Amino acid sequence: MSGAAGRPAFAVFIATSLDGFIARADGRIDWLEAANASVPAGEDCGYAAFMGSVDALLMGRKTFDTVRGFADWPYGDKPVVVLSRSLRVLPEGLPPSVSLMAGDPREVAAQLAARGHQRVYLDGGETIQAFVAAGLVDEFVVTRVPVLIGEGRPLFSALPKDQFWQHADTRSWPFGFVQSRYLAQR
Amino acid sequence: MSGAAGRPAFAVFIATSLDGFIARADGRIDWLEAANASVPAGEDCGYAAFMGSVDALLMGRKTFDTVRGFADWPYGDKPVVVLSRSLRVLPEGLPPSVSLMAGDPREVAAQLAARGHQRVYLDGGETIQAFVAAGLVDEFVVTRVPVLIGEGRPLFSALPKDQFWQHADTRSWPFGFVQSRYLAQR
Repeated sequence: MSGAAGRPAFAVFIATSLDGFIARADGRIDWLEAANASVPAGEDCGYAAFMGSVDALLMGRKTFDTVRGFADWPYGDKPVVVLSRSLRVLPEGLPPSVSLMAGDPREVAAQLAARGHQRVYLDGGETIQAFVAAGLVDEFVVTRVPVLIGEGRPLFSALPKDQFWQHADTRSWPFGFVQSRYLAQR
Repeated sequence: MSGAAGRPAFAVFIATSLDGFIARADGRIDWLEAANASVPAGEDCGYAAFMGSVDALLMGRKTFDTVRGFADWPYGDKPVVVLSRSLRVLPEGLPPSVSLMAGDPREVAAQLAARGHQRVYLDGGETIQAFVAAGLVDEFVVTRVPVLIGEGRPLFSALPKDQFWQHADTRSWPFGFVQSRYLAQR
């Protein structure tokens, strides 16, 4: 789906523990990697299709730091925009598809629209929370992994007011992941 | 399913917001009542079947206080055990099926087994959390209501260690509720 007039749609695709965490307090996702060990080779739970549906990624600086630690840059030449209040320049050695941006969610949405983006994959806990709170998230795909980790970094955070969402569809796999897709009610 | 040898099975059947809360911080569930308004008459999302599968309820004192405020006692003559550290006697005017119990989860499980209970519906946030942490919950049915409320009383809490669960099944309804059933991995 596309976003409201004048801005791109923002879509989230993320895994959480059964108790709603995206990482442990120190950022580790060992519980997710342990669960992924039971996922058959070739099963990506819709990730490639989702990635094919977006024309850019917008991620927070912490997520960017994690991605930079990977052996290979995972996004090909798809535009990746890193959101940061503190970074002034990007580290060296990145593909030319990576750029830096600052601003509150509405300003960022306007800048992305000016670049012609239609649908943006929003990633990173704090970035997702800021865009949800601003009412800018259009689609939410959450994959619940059947493990309770007790504490960590929650997917969701405080909101100015309740948000009702429209459930689009849910599917599950024999290895116990349950994926639900929600659309914003406008 | 039944519990481990020598104790009843404990099963949870509960609704949460999309962000994992069972009530607002002050205990209100107005968001759930608002969502229930879109549920067709006669649709109970499996509640009666679940209730028919248990031979007793075990609930915390706060949940008991809420239930006592209802116009009618909702559990017929099914045994209801109220868990409390502070209450010494039950209020007057309750059915004879209601009794009081104290103790940690394992002690309570042993007392319920001594009464011959086979499968117990566990209700109330703190009670559920204590039994989950003690590794005594055998079945978990969680119904996710498509609303973010931002903060409140979480369904889950800190745990001594990770708990992997077995996903049994998931179903959803046109009004947007998504219900997943999990079984303990032992």
